[in-house]
Order: sequence, then C-alpha cells, then structure tokens
Amino acid sequence: MFNFTYYTPTKVVFGRDAEAQTGTLVRAQGCNKVLIHYGGGSVIRSGLLDRVKSSLDQAGVTYTQLGGVVPNPRLSLVYQGIELVRREGVDFILAVGGGSVIDSAKAIAYGAVDEGDVWDLYDHTRQAVGCLPLGAVLTIAAAGSEMSNSSVITKDEGGVKRGYNSDLCRPKFAVMNPDLTTTLPPYQTASGCTDILMHTMERYFTPDGNMEITDSIAEGLLRTVMKNALILRDDPKNCDARAEVMWASSLSHNGLTGSSQGDWATHGLEHELGGMFDVTHGAGLAAVWGSWARYVYQDCLHRFVRFATHVMGVADSGSPEDIALRGIEAMEDFFRSIHMPTCLSELGITPTQEQLETMARMCSAAAGGAKGAAKVLREADMLSIYQMANH
Amino acid sequence: MFNFTYYTPTKVVFGRDAEAQTGTLVRAQGCNKVLIHYGGGSVIRSGLLDRVKSSLDQAGVTYTQLGGVVPNPRLSLVYQGIELVRREGVDFILAVGGGSVIDSAKAIAYGAVDEGDVWDLYDHTRQAVGCLPLGAVLTIAAAGSEMSNSSVITKDEGGVKRGYNSDLCRPKFAVMNPDLTTTLPPYQTASGCTDILMHTMERYFTPDGNMEITDSIAEGLLRTVMKNALILRDDPKNCDARAEVMWASSLSHNGLTGSSQGDWATHGLEHELGGMFDVTHGAGLAAVWGSWARYVYQDCLHRFVRFATHVMGVADSGSPEDIALRGIEAMEDFFRSIHMPTCLSELGITPTQEQLETMARMCSAAAGGAKGAAKVLREADMLSIYQMANH
Repeated sequence: MFNFTYYTPTKVVFGRDAEAQTGTLVRAQGCNKVLIHYGGGSVIRSGLLDRVKSSLDQAGVTYTQLGGVVPNPRLSLVYQGIELVRREGVDFILAVGGGSVIDSAKAIAYGAVDEGDVWDLYDHTRQAVGCLPLGAVLTIAAAGSEMSNSSVITKDEGGVKRGYNSDLCRPKFAVMNPDLTTTLPPYQTASGCTDILMHTMERYFTPDGNMEITDSIAEGLLRTVMKNALILRDDPKNCDARAEVMWASSLSHNGLTGSSQGDWATHGLEHELGGMFDVTHGAGLAAVWGSWARYVYQDCLHRFVRFATHVMGVADSGSPEDIALRGIEAMEDFFRSIHMPTCLSELGITPTQEQLETMARMCSAAAGGAKGAAKVLREADMLSIYQMANH
Repeated sequence: MFNFTYYTPTKVVFGRDAEAQTGTLVRAQGCNKVLIHYGGGSVIRSGLLDRVKSSLDQAGVTYTQLGGVVPNPRLSLVYQGIELVRREGVDFILAVGGGSVIDSAKAIAYGAVDEGDVWDLYDHTRQAVGCLPLGAVLTIAAAGSEMSNSSVITKDEGGVKRGYNSDLCRPKFAVMNPDLTTTLPPYQTASGCTDILMHTMERYFTPDGNMEITDSIAEGLLRTVMKNALILRDDPKNCDARAEVMWASSLSHNGLTGSSQGDWATHGLEHELGGMFDVTHGAGLAAVWGSWARYVYQDCLHRFVRFATHVMGVADSGSPEDIALRGIEAMEDFFRSIHMPTCLSELGITPTQEQLETMARMCSAAAGGAKGAAKVLREADMLSIYQMANH
C-alpha cells in the first residue's frame, strides 16, 4: 500500500476573463498591500497588468510592483523584492506571469519573513520558517508552480540553479485564463507542454509504480497533453486546446499524478543545463530525457513497458526490452514533432568535456550524491547521460 | 471554454496507520478541544476510537465525544452536538466514520457558529456565515465528504433529506487508512463503490460535456473503481483494492472529475427514497440510475455513447441509440454483479402510487421545480422515472 500526503489548498479560478477576480481574491485573504511581480514587457503590452491593477483598485487593494523576472529567475532580483516588500509593508505577493515569475515570488515570500539569507533554503542548509501569502495570475502553462510546493531559483554567480519545496509556499489562489496564453511563441508553448509531460513522467517512472487510479490519471493526462500540443502546433490560437494544456499544467505538478516519490533525475540533469547555459527549461528536459531513458530503462523495465503500451500506443508484441525502447523512440518522435530537441546540439549548446564533468559534479552534489528512483544515479551515471545526449 | 472554480484545501494523509497522525493534525490547526463524533459501536470495537484518542492525548489535545450517528444522519443529533460544542468550548470537530458521520459533523460545525437554526441552511432559506474547523478519520469509502463541500442531513419529522454546499465546511484534513475498511460488510462496500461511481457519473452526463482532460480522469476513475469493486466482491480484505477505492472516493467528489455543473438528478431522486424509506444511499442510487438513464439518454446521446465506448467497453458499432442503450445495460449488469439493486423491489421497497407522487413532489420542490442537465426534469418526469424503477 502506498502512503502519501496530498495537499493542494490553492483555489483555482479558471476561465475567460478570470483575471477580473484578482482583487476580490486578494481581499478574501484579508490582505491590503500587494507586490505585483512580473517579467518582461509582454504583460504590459497585452494590457494584462492594467486589468489586474484595475481589479485590485476596485477591491480597494493598494500595490507596488517589481518587474524584470527572467527565465531561470535570479536570486539578485529576489533580494530586491524582499527589500521592497519590507520597505513598503507589503502583505501579499501577486505573481503575474509563468513559472519563473511565480518561483521568484515564492522566494521573495519566504525571504520577507526570514531574517537570514533566503538562499540558505535553496542551498538546503535551513528550512523555511514562514512565507508571506501569495497568488498567481498565470500567463504560461508549463511549470505548475501555480499549485505546487516548489520553486527554483538561480544564483547569479556561477549559475547555480536550485529548488526548494515546502507546503508553506503553495499559492492561495491561481487565476487561470487560457486566452492569456494564445499569443505565446510556438517554442514556449512546446517547451511548456514538455515541462507538463515531464512533471507527470518524473512521477511515473519508479520501480514500485503507483496506484492504479493514479496511473490511470497520469496516462490520461499524458495522452491529452500530447494530443493538444499537436493541435497547438498547427493552431496556436485554439482556446480549447490552450485550456486543456493550462489545466494539465496544474494537475501535473500538484501531486495528483503520483502516489510515490518519483524519479526526478531528468529535472536534476536539466537544472545544471539551465544554470550553466540558460536554456529554456522544457526544451532542456526534452534534450536529455531520451538519453536518461535509454540509460535507465532496463532497471525499471515494467514501467517503461507500461508507458509504451498505455501512453504511447506501442503494440504489446516483442520482448519487453523491444516494447520499452519503442516507447522511448515514440516519445522522442513526439518531441521532434513539436520541434523540441532530443540532444544537446539541437538545444543549441555544445558543452566541452570539462563542462559536462562540472555539470555532473554539481548535479550529484545538489542531490547529496545520488538521484533517481527508476535507477539511482551517481556522478558517473550523470556524466554518462550528459555524454549520451551531447551530440 | 469551461469556466470553473476548483478548491480542495483538505490535507489528505493516506496510508497504513495514518490515524496515528490525528493529534498532530489537530494541533497544527491551532485547536485544543475536540468533539469526537462517530456512529455506532464498530469504531469502539475495532479499537480505532482508542487509537484516535491516544493520538490526541499525545498531542496534548483534550476532547469530548458524541456517538450515535445513523445512516441518513438526523437533525436531532446535530442539535445535540451543537449544544455540546457550545457547552464544552469545543474548537474542532473530528468525525470518525463514513459520510454520514462527516456530514453530521459538518452540520454541527455550521450550527456552532450560527445563532439561528442550522436547518435553515439545508432548507435553503439562509447561507452559512461560518463553520468550526473540522477533520475526518475515514472508515468508509463512499460519500467523498472527507474532501467535499457538501453535507446531507435528514430532518426527523417527515424524513426530509436535504443537502447544503459551501466551501466553508471542507475538512481541514482527512486521515485515510484503507485497512480500516477491510471489515466492511459486502453490501456496504458495494454501496460505497456505487456512490463513488455516481459522483463522477453525475458530473459526466451533461449536454456540454467536460474538458478532455477531465473526461480522461473521470473515465479512468470509473474503470478503476469498477475493476476494484469486483476484486473486493471476491476478496474483501484486499488492501490494495481498498486503497484504490478509498482514494477514488475523495477524487470523485472533490471537483476533479467535472468541469461543468453536472446533472445530479439521480442524487435528487435518491434523496427522497433515503428520506422516506431510509435505504442505503449507494444502493438507492443504483436502484434508480438505469430508469433515469433510459428516460434521459436521447436528450444527451453523445455523452451516453462516449460513456458506453470509453467506460463500459461497448463496441462502437450500430446506431448511437443502440450503443448508448448497450452502455446503460452494461452498467446495470455491473451493478447486478456486485449485488446492487437496479429497481425498487430489489432495493427492498414497494412504494404505493401515492408515495411515488409524494416523492416526486418533494424532489421537485427541493430542486426549485426542476433538476438535471442531461435532461431537465420536472415533477412529472420524476414521477415517470420512479414508476419505471418501481418493479
């Protein structure tokens, strides 16, 4: 029997024009002074930021703002945010953006109530003592940070990318209007879909598997996201497909699709790529997944066989190894079909042997020496996978 | 595009010996004085009540207790509970039992902070103003009340059974140890599985359907529950199957399996049966579902066709009407296979024409004159369905 904890307190308000409810949602938290946190100019140009401010105005909520979050969000901006929150007496952080903005908001929220250095949490030398309440107005379906307990921050010096998980940071609400994502560039959309798929796949590939009901949910989610990713490749403004992918982004990372701990090695391997080369997270995952899968599948064969037949539609004939490999190939074919990379050169990077070794060493160190469940990986394994992907 | 709100703040602690965490969970809510609410003697005989008390003791939480909840829980006991809570200064209600106990606890929690008559809420003449925090130690997988926003209470005089929904009553935590359900009688187990299936089916049969991802989750859940209900028919102590069904009970009624409002006519029809004849809720649902389905399927044909092919494994050949009817027959066959009734005589009741008319009148009145989405039913329709089922 699986023992697990499931905790997803985030209130999701989903649908057209949902952002008009933002002010009411902040007010329902008993908060009065908001830090609006966002990324580049797209939320300004699209008018979203103005609509959010208007909603806050109507609810009688005051605000200050801090933009400039970049993909692989930086610790330096987090420090700025913490200082701003303290100076202005902010009592609620509102992230308007995608996973990077929400993750940055979570780090600010931790830091605002903590006298020490917030990086200690991400460096895993201390646990969080509290967190300002936060909410999200989502503009990219990908990271699932709008319902998750995780955030990932990159330290500017050395490009060290680290994650920290705590229920304290789960957003109080998530405003999800799929229409906001119809103007995303194809590469961002495909990267987002890949990230969503990977959040479920990381939970899927474990030697002990999952509950049957959890597998049925995970497999349905994977099939639905792949189907809608192809629809969006050809018809980016398809609102219904945007809605499917957006809701999937939350469900794939709120704990629903796995009753066991999961593997997470692919995420670990990507974190070093993201830290060193600043690649898009979803694309980085796609670039290493196939190499990871070929390296580990024989240690978790029954799950790769199930994945092949239940998710990828591979015929249940031939040896288990054959079926598993055809499932991996089918997934790589899918990644290619949505123009995602399946090796590092397609990701646009060509690391040197020394860089590969550095990433393997950092990946291993970040995981305390070993990572993975399908197969437990150590530094030498990580290097082998990087090398397999480096073509 | 579907607009919906999803809010499931309940923390689920799932697995073997989970009840040992009860005290810690209450303490984490900042509460000190608990009303332990339960039903008959089974939680005493099994030792569960003692284990829960021991957990509370260890956490330094004091408690008082109120047993005696019956299926179709009574308003009179709710009033007793409210008085006890006020007298003893209780600040947390802990339900130890199944859906009836949790629903009774919710009514007490509403009433404890309300100067008026709590029945007004169930009579839909007032809205709740607040609710004491509550939690559940679940002993029956069925109602999904452990994560839901709903509770159903029966007024002693006249057997009036009414439900009230509000996010205020969602439990703070749900302790779910599937081992606690292995001693349930077969009829209770099968009724529970039926209730779980119906919570998803009520959300499934709507003319506008659901999101694709929601359908994929709903269909996976229905197939998994049916499969495990058959396992439990033959092997009631199968812990893994108990776990599948228990987790399904929560997921089927926490909002996950439907992005639209749902139909809920079968529940409405059953509420009157439960109020007048005190039948087991799940069995009552099974006894009327087939008649409801045959009465409405032509008005929502595409959904009944999808149900037949995606859930019941009916071959996609013949006219849509044929496929839909074969799906309904397959569901009735499934109900029979787990010894659930598919008509009122098999439920053990033979209402008079006058009683049928009374139930149709009350069912219509409770719904404000009309109920249903697959087909909107009025009093005459409800009477027709009762008459179809009355053999």
